[in-house]
Amino acid sequence: MESFRVELGPLSHPVHVGAGILDSVGRLAHDAGLKAGRAAVVTDSNVGAIYAARALGSLKEAGFDAVLIEVAPGEASKSYAAVQLLYDRMTVAELDRHSTVFALGGGVVGDLAGFAAATFLRGIAVVQIPTTVVGQVDASLGGKTGINHRDAKNLIGAFHQPRMIVADVSTLRSMPDREFREGLAEVIKYGAIMDADMIGDLERGLDAILARAESRLEPIVARSLKHKAVVVSADEREGGLRKILNYGHTVGHALEASAGYGTYLHGEAVAIGMAAAGRLSSSYAGLDSGQRERIERLLGRAGLPVNLPAGWRGGGFTRALKLDKKRAGGEVEFVLLDRLGHAIVHDLSFDDIVAGIG
Amino acid sequence: MESFRVELGPLSHPVHVGAGILDSVGRLAHDAGLKAGRAAVVTDSNVGAIYAARALGSLKEAGFDAVLIEVAPGEASKSYAAVQLLYDRMTVAELDRHSTVFALGGGVVGDLAGFAAATFLRGIAVVQIPTTVVGQVDASLGGKTGINHRDAKNLIGAFHQPRMIVADVSTLRSMPDREFREGLAEVIKYGAIMDADMIGDLERGLDAILARAESRLEPIVARSLKHKAVVVSADEREGGLRKILNYGHTVGHALEASAGYGTYLHGEAVAIGMAAAGRLSSSYAGLDSGQRERIERLLGRAGLPVNLPAGWRGGGFTRALKLDKKRAGGEVEFVLLDRLGHAIVHDLSFDDIVAGIG
Repeated sequence: MESFRVELGPLSHPVHVGAGILDSVGRLAHDAGLKAGRAAVVTDSNVGAIYAARALGSLKEAGFDAVLIEVAPGEASKSYAAVQLLYDRMTVAELDRHSTVFALGGGVVGDLAGFAAATFLRGIAVVQIPTTVVGQVDASLGGKTGINHRDAKNLIGAFHQPRMIVADVSTLRSMPDREFREGLAEVIKYGAIMDADMIGDLERGLDAILARAESRLEPIVARSLKHKAVVVSADEREGGLRKILNYGHTVGHALEASAGYGTYLHGEAVAIGMAAAGRLSSSYAGLDSGQRERIERLLGRAGLPVNLPAGWRGGGFTRALKLDKKRAGGEVEFVLLDRLGHAIVHDLSFDDIVAGIG
Repeated sequence: MESFRVELGPLSHPVHVGAGILDSVGRLAHDAGLKAGRAAVVTDSNVGAIYAARALGSLKEAGFDAVLIEVAPGEASKSYAAVQLLYDRMTVAELDRHSTVFALGGGVVGDLAGFAAATFLRGIAVVQIPTTVVGQVDASLGGKTGINHRDAKNLIGAFHQPRMIVADVSTLRSMPDREFREGLAEVIKYGAIMDADMIGDLERGLDAILARAESRLEPIVARSLKHKAVVVSADEREGGLRKILNYGHTVGHALEASAGYGTYLHGEAVAIGMAAAGRLSSSYAGLDSGQRERIERLLGRAGLPVNLPAGWRGGGFTRALKLDKKRAGGEVEFVLLDRLGHAIVHDLSFDDIVAGIG
C-alpha cells in the first residue's frame, strides 16, 4: 500500500492506494479520525453486488454502523430523484453531523454520494472508495461533487473535499475492458501535461498495465493521483493551475454533447480531444511533432480513438464547441502543450480552434 | 450608513447597514468586486412587489443584467421544488461561474437563494439583502443556507458565505408588527450572551425602536450584526463558540416542533426559550436573579411571550426536547448565562432541563 496526503490546509486528507485494501477501509477510516457510529455506504447495484459486503464488514469491525444505500448503475443516477432518495435513507438511518458517507463505486456514485454528503446537515464527511480507473486516477480527488440538470451535466454541485480516499486497485480487475481502457486516457493526460518521464514509463509498461497486473496498477494509480494532488493543492477551486487538468476536455466535452451522451465514453472523447489539442499545440505553442506523435501512439496502443468523427465540421460538434466557449463568459482559454510534460493556457478564437484541430 | 467587514480569511466580506441603501446595492456590489453581467434577484412575491424594482434599477445602473425570480412567501418555499425552479431559471438566464445571486427578502429567501447559489455550478456568489429584523440581525450573516426535508427543518443545506450583506433598515418599516417584534428576540439575545451594556441601552431605547425610528434601527442592527460577526469569525462551522448563539434555541426549537410550525414565530419561541434558559442559568450557572428578570422584562416590553404554554410537561414538547437531545449524538449541551452579557456551555441531563425550566 502506498499512502500520501493531499495538502489542502484544514481540508488536507490521506490517500491510500493498494491491492486488497477494501478490507481495511474501517481501520483506515478510524485512523483518519472519522467517528465510529452511524454511517452510510452508497454504491450502485453492480458494484454493490461484488464489493458492498466486504466494505460493510470492514466498517463493522471498526465500529461503524453503516446502512447500505444502492442506486441504479449509470449516469441517470446523477439526478434530483437519486439525491432525494439518499437524503431520505440517511434521515431514516439517523445520520448526524458526525456521520460519514462512504462512496463505493465509479464516478457517478462518487459525484452523487459526495453531493449528498456536501448538503446533508450543511455538510458531513465523505470517504471516496473509487472502483474504476477514472475514479481512482481522477474523479475521487479534488472535491468536485454534483448531479446533472436536464440542460447540463454537473450543473448542480458543490466542492466538498473527501476526508480520505481508498483506491483498491484489485477492484480494477473486474472492470469491463472498454471502461478500463477509457480510464487510461486520464493517466496519459498526466504524463502529457506534467510528467514527460511518465510517458516513457507508460510506453514501456503499457502491456502489463493492460494485463492488469496489480503490481503495475498500484504505482500508476498512485503516480496519477499524486500529480492531481499537486495541482489541486495549488488551486482548490479551479481558479488557475487546475485548468491544465482540462487538457483534451474542451473538444472532448463538445464531442460528448454532440454525439449524444453514451456514444463515446468520457475518456474516449478526451483521447480524441487530446489528439486534437496536440495538433493545436504544435501550431500555437511550439510542441515538437515527434512528441505529439508519441502521445497519439500511446493513446492508440491503449485502444483509445484519436480521430474526430467523419463530417465533424458540419455537425452539432462545432455548435457544441461554440456554446461551450460562450458559456465560459467570452474568455476563450485552451490548454496546450508547449513541450511534452508541460501545459500552458492559451487564448484561441473559435475559428482558430476549428481550423487547427482538423 | 455604517460598514464593517466579517473576518473569515479568504471568505471575508463587507456588511453595510443604513437607511435607504437598497438604492445603492449595485454600486456596493461593484465595490465589493462582484462582476457585472448576468445575475439573478431572488425574492418572494410580497417583498418583490415593494422592493424588487428598486434593487433591479440599482443593479442595472451598475451594469448587472439581473433576472427576477419570485417564489411564494413563506416557509413552504424552502423546498426541493423551489430550489429546482431557481436552478431552471438561472440556467435559462445563462448565469455562469462569475454571476451573482441577490437574495432580497426574509430568512426563507436568504436560505433558499443562498442554497441555490451554493450548489449552482459548484458555488456562485450570493449577496444577502435581508428585509426583516431576523434577517438583518441574524440570518443573513454566517453562511448558513438550506431547505427543509419532510422530516426536519434545514436538513438539506450548505455553508456558503455571502460576498456582501446589505441591510437597509428602511425596509423594516413595512414589516407587520408581530414579525418586527419577533426579530427583537434575537437582538435581546446578543445583549444577554455577550453585551450587558446593550441590555441597558435597549431598556432605555426600546420605545423608539418599537416606533421604528430609522436613526435608532441602524445602530441596533449594526451592533447585533457585529456581535454575530465576532462569533462567526471565531468559529465558522459551529464547532465551538458559535454554539452560544443558540441561547434560548433548544427550548425554542422544541416549542416550534411540538406546537406545529406556525403557532409560534421563531423569535417568539426563542423568547420563551430564553426565559426558560434564564431560570436554568440561575439554578446551574449562578445567574443573578435580578439580571435574569431584566431580560424577561425586556422581552415582555417587546411584546414577546416568556411563559411555556399550559400543560407543557405532558405534551409533545418534552418528546421534541428529548428527540433534539438524542439527535445531538448523546452530547447534552445547553447554553446558559453565568452573568448578564456572558454565556457558557453546560452539560445538563434531560431531567435537569425539565425540572429546571418550569
